[in-house]
Amino acid sequence: MKAVWLEDRKLCIRDDVPAPEPPDGEVLIRVLEAGICNTDIELTRGYYPYKGILGHEFVGVVDDGPDHLAGKRVVGEINVVCGDCGTCREGRPTHCERRTVLGIVNRAGAFAEYLTLPAANLHVVPDEVSTDAATFVEPVAAALEIQEQIAVRVDDRVLVVGDGKLGQLIAQTLALTGCDLLVVGRHDAKLGQLADREIRTGSAESVATGAFDVAVECTGNPDGFALARRGLRPRGTLIMKSTYAGELSFDASSLVVDEITLVGSRCGPFPPAIRLLAEGRVDVEPLIHARYPLSDAVAAFERAQRPAVLKVLLEM
Amino acid sequence: MKAVWLEDRKLCIRDDVPAPEPPDGEVLIRVLEAGICNTDIELTRGYYPYKGILGHEFVGVVDDGPDHLAGKRVVGEINVVCGDCGTCREGRPTHCERRTVLGIVNRAGAFAEYLTLPAANLHVVPDEVSTDAATFVEPVAAALEIQEQIAVRVDDRVLVVGDGKLGQLIAQTLALTGCDLLVVGRHDAKLGQLADREIRTGSAESVATGAFDVAVECTGNPDGFALARRGLRPRGTLIMKSTYAGELSFDASSLVVDEITLVGSRCGPFPPAIRLLAEGRVDVEPLIHARYPLSDAVAAFERAQRPAVLKVLLEM
Repeated sequence: MKAVWLEDRKLCIRDDVPAPEPPDGEVLIRVLEAGICNTDIELTRGYYPYKGILGHEFVGVVDDGPDHLAGKRVVGEINVVCGDCGTCREGRPTHCERRTVLGIVNRAGAFAEYLTLPAANLHVVPDEVSTDAATFVEPVAAALEIQEQIAVRVDDRVLVVGDGKLGQLIAQTLALTGCDLLVVGRHDAKLGQLADREIRTGSAESVATGAFDVAVECTGNPDGFALARRGLRPRGTLIMKSTYAGELSFDASSLVVDEITLVGSRCGPFPPAIRLLAEGRVDVEPLIHARYPLSDAVAAFERAQRPAVLKVLLEM
Repeated sequence: MKAVWLEDRKLCIRDDVPAPEPPDGEVLIRVLEAGICNTDIELTRGYYPYKGILGHEFVGVVDDGPDHLAGKRVVGEINVVCGDCGTCREGRPTHCERRTVLGIVNRAGAFAEYLTLPAANLHVVPDEVSTDAATFVEPVAAALEIQEQIAVRVDDRVLVVGDGKLGQLIAQTLALTGCDLLVVGRHDAKLGQLADREIRTGSAESVATGAFDVAVECTGNPDGFALARRGLRPRGTLIMKSTYAGELSFDASSLVVDEITLVGSRCGPFPPAIRLLAEGRVDVEPLIHARYPLSDAVAAFERAQRPAVLKVLLEM
């Protein structure tokens, strides 16, 4: 089958990858569409030493699987877990000690004609959710992880630093809480998309020091972290939503003196993400900036890395 | 009056400091004893540009003040707050935007014959608490701040990194929760004092990776931070209890992937600290390693910085 292959930080399109045969408990899925995420881009830059088929944001059709799934459109949770290690048994399966992660850790990903995942990882996509929109279930779930970790109150002043793909979804999902929200970014067009949804936007200079109860960092760069930190009041909470290349340096004493809480945040819950998309309460279509056939994935990756570009989809 | 004066990172004993005159709402206190804290030592190293009388852990007698305080032994909360700024009005007075801090920020400290504080900052020391023990109210309160910030459950596996003055008090106060506690440090004698209280101790090598729900860092050095981080399970909580000289570098991506929470922690509540000392549930007398007259404070500071030494007291 055709697939996007990463090896030694180089992407290539291969035609010769054997179609996967689902092991016991897993299901064969024919991929319809997949989205390019910043993590995919970071992997091509060597963030984590992955070799194989990239991709983890996808929607597909179950080609071969149990009755309740066969022929259905599905999305899939990306962590494949053992259910048996200490971490799974303590109720934190997304942190399973033996996990593989679709297109990220020891598991062939979604930028391919076919993939396999355990039936337990799959969620049927309701008719109300378009195939395009379904590719956003995984990142919308990741955005919703914030509300799984902390209570966002309606009177909280919340700062989102970053107007990219993830920042857009985080802004939309946080706006649902009714909190007092400000999103800062560097791209007028991206901020404009938020302003169209009546979400308040601004530049770094517009962030008042110490004015926010919660700050969400979704740029993955030290400047973004510093801005989020500067915006927080004493005892405020800084959510770290992006991975960072290399080490991050910060003034730890000020964190102690101001009693700041930092919270790392990763994968989130699929069911509410699917529901919000089905109800139209999160609108992802305007975030789609380009679509490419799988065979043009290298060009798609180039496009996805341009500053003004949000989501780029691959069509299989 | 006599006082320990810090200027340009140099300590000296002065005899010519005018005794303070309490402004409206403040009370004149004759200091009996005071303890040397690591923050005092850090201030002599330039951690924060303070000039004036050092010292913030003290017990004294109210020399001139309202009836309910006059002649009483008292301890005092170190943050003097306005009660009127946004931070005070939102219920975080220890973070008051206009605060002064005894012997740390814009307020003459306790290593002197007299000091003044607002009556509202003072707590009467009950007869059951010795004058020696009362000098520990402030650091015991700081230790208790952890339990104000997070719920420590009886089945939590808790790692304390650091066997110094603050680590000892944190270990004792955390032990009260019944949690599964391990304290690691580098000094056999200090660890021995914890072992005498049936608190489990070990070396850095004895810390199993990913085995702890909560880790408390009280060394103030990057190695201590790294060890605390290594000990934490995914979604664990790292309490930062020490200030750090300079910037701290860490692997921010691993914090995100493992969804770790970092919590900066500073001053805590005096009333439960006094109660625990009165009930004998925290035992501070074995931590007193030396006492010096105020006039020998320079020698006292030298002693306090030796590796095996815990608390050094100054007697006025």
